[in-house]
Amino acid sequence: MVDLGDRSYPIFIGESLLSKPEHLCPFISGSQVMIVSNETIAPLYLSKVCQILAGYQVDTTILPDGEKFKNLDTLNRIFDELLSKQHNRTTTLIALGGGVVGDMTGFAAACYQRGVNFIQIPTTLLAQVDSSVGGKTAVNHPKGKNMIGAFYQPQCVIADTDTLNTLPDREYRAGLAEVVKYGLIRDADFFVWLESNMERLLARDPEAIAFAVHRSCENKAKVVHEDEKEGGVRAILNFGHTFGHAIETAQGYGEWLHGEAIAAGMVMATELSRRMGWVSEEDKLRVVNLLEQCQLPVWAPKSIDRQTFMSLMSVDKKVLDGTLRLVLLKSLGEATVTSDFDADYLRTLLSAEE
Amino acid sequence: MVDLGDRSYPIFIGESLLSKPEHLCPFISGSQVMIVSNETIAPLYLSKVCQILAGYQVDTTILPDGEKFKNLDTLNRIFDELLSKQHNRTTTLIALGGGVVGDMTGFAAACYQRGVNFIQIPTTLLAQVDSSVGGKTAVNHPKGKNMIGAFYQPQCVIADTDTLNTLPDREYRAGLAEVVKYGLIRDADFFVWLESNMERLLARDPEAIAFAVHRSCENKAKVVHEDEKEGGVRAILNFGHTFGHAIETAQGYGEWLHGEAIAAGMVMATELSRRMGWVSEEDKLRVVNLLEQCQLPVWAPKSIDRQTFMSLMSVDKKVLDGTLRLVLLKSLGEATVTSDFDADYLRTLLSAEE
Repeated sequence: MVDLGDRSYPIFIGESLLSKPEHLCPFISGSQVMIVSNETIAPLYLSKVCQILAGYQVDTTILPDGEKFKNLDTLNRIFDELLSKQHNRTTTLIALGGGVVGDMTGFAAACYQRGVNFIQIPTTLLAQVDSSVGGKTAVNHPKGKNMIGAFYQPQCVIADTDTLNTLPDREYRAGLAEVVKYGLIRDADFFVWLESNMERLLARDPEAIAFAVHRSCENKAKVVHEDEKEGGVRAILNFGHTFGHAIETAQGYGEWLHGEAIAAGMVMATELSRRMGWVSEEDKLRVVNLLEQCQLPVWAPKSIDRQTFMSLMSVDKKVLDGTLRLVLLKSLGEATVTSDFDADYLRTLLSAEE
Repeated sequence: MVDLGDRSYPIFIGESLLSKPEHLCPFISGSQVMIVSNETIAPLYLSKVCQILAGYQVDTTILPDGEKFKNLDTLNRIFDELLSKQHNRTTTLIALGGGVVGDMTGFAAACYQRGVNFIQIPTTLLAQVDSSVGGKTAVNHPKGKNMIGAFYQPQCVIADTDTLNTLPDREYRAGLAEVVKYGLIRDADFFVWLESNMERLLARDPEAIAFAVHRSCENKAKVVHEDEKEGGVRAILNFGHTFGHAIETAQGYGEWLHGEAIAAGMVMATELSRRMGWVSEEDKLRVVNLLEQCQLPVWAPKSIDRQTFMSLMSVDKKVLDGTLRLVLLKSLGEATVTSDFDADYLRTLLSAEE
């Protein structure tokens, strides 16, 4: 449960949830439903979801798959479909897919007729542990990631862990980056658990996955409860993201997966924390080792020069009045948002080739 | 003052306000300002506003003028400019112009980095008495007006009545349609005042204008206070709009001005109310006469056939679960939102050529 007063909503986590109408139907407000999915996910799960929606007017919008389609043009296809099928203000949008589908469907729901209801059915690890929870919705702009969006909460989140079985290995591993993030920013015990259980997670042991998804959502829900609109502490969820977004923008969206860029970004932020004297060399190596075990990148590609990197970091949303603020680690398991770091450390770090 | 708890904001109405920093500067949060205006208004008032913004980073986005540019593509030009000039989350957008500029700037502010502050400086009568107050922001979609948007309140509204001096006559008269609306839906005394003072208003008597803008904003603010997100009573502000939007969509945006379409729509809604027996023939003629005095249209163009009209009315946002709801008059000065009207009356009315 994400506790946000009258915008609170439940998160259902478990196996075979897609066949159970009791988690979905009570959260649909009217008689119309628009399922938004993509070309990869729809063939796998769309008919299953449609089956439990008998009695509703069910329409679908199938988007192309990939971060590079997360833009205003693709968003407009959802609006086109809603208007063509005469969906009214009581309609419910359902996001069936990964983070990109969830972010776009949520933003479409926030804007369509100035706001209609929506439900998240995340089908990737990344979406289940991170993007589907907390109400951040957005599309990208050529000049910056997630620059156009809204805070808009879903009616409920349904994380069916069975859907992870069809997830390609690379995407699954990218999702683990965000799982590791919770350990780093606020849950040292969980980080230790991950060190001991990464083998099981990589082998997709259902019990280990269920625990990791639960624990991740629990951490995220607590942070969102404390600070829904990111006035303060919520920014720690962006650990590794200022570096990561710069990587994604420099390469063009879609080269690296989001989780891959975040993994590299987390190591860079940890290294800066180490140079500040907050994290030991030993702890930093634990971070590198855990992410390398997931076969994730642990530094930005060498092709991005320092100048470009700095300039891309400075358009990041964490910049307040010209001052670059970063999420750094005070210790392993405790993050802080600060502009109080040595800019020279950052500059030499960006020139380093690790 | 619009009373909305922690989202309350003041409305300043008067002469020469554009030269007074005390109404503007206290409502700017950071050091960056983006003024959004259009090609018609910018040459008249942009430099004036810039003068009182010394000390801020002031950037501008000048949009083409007209309802037909109120779409996602034009919206994106505002995002382009904000990102090119590296505006961060503490930036303040200023809408300097009519309803189209206000609606787009407000929606851009709602979406940019998931929400930044904005200020309304309406320069048309329509915007001063209606669109700048209440937080409705949106762009159009080819399939429907204002279909993509947000409820998003400004920090303040500055209505400088001097700016109406440069307003073309046709636009000024179109704005009077919304003024008349407040009399019809909830302020019978104001309607009587308008009948007695329309000559003065048409002659642009400053005192009469100031009174009409004040009284209109007062009415609007009270309705918005009661129902910010249009769950109920706020819908009465859409009196004439379901008919009016159908006219605008059928013709393509920009053929008739918004206020002209609303004038025709209000007469059609009044005529339907008359057929329901709620308004007398005599009162209906008072409405027609007052609008004709403003040289406003008092019926839809004959070129729109009944079939088209019905179908366009049914995608309007006031349709709930397939039932068309209309704002009608229970009497002159009292509106109601209802689906409880005789559909045959509506059909024959749409075939009538008045």
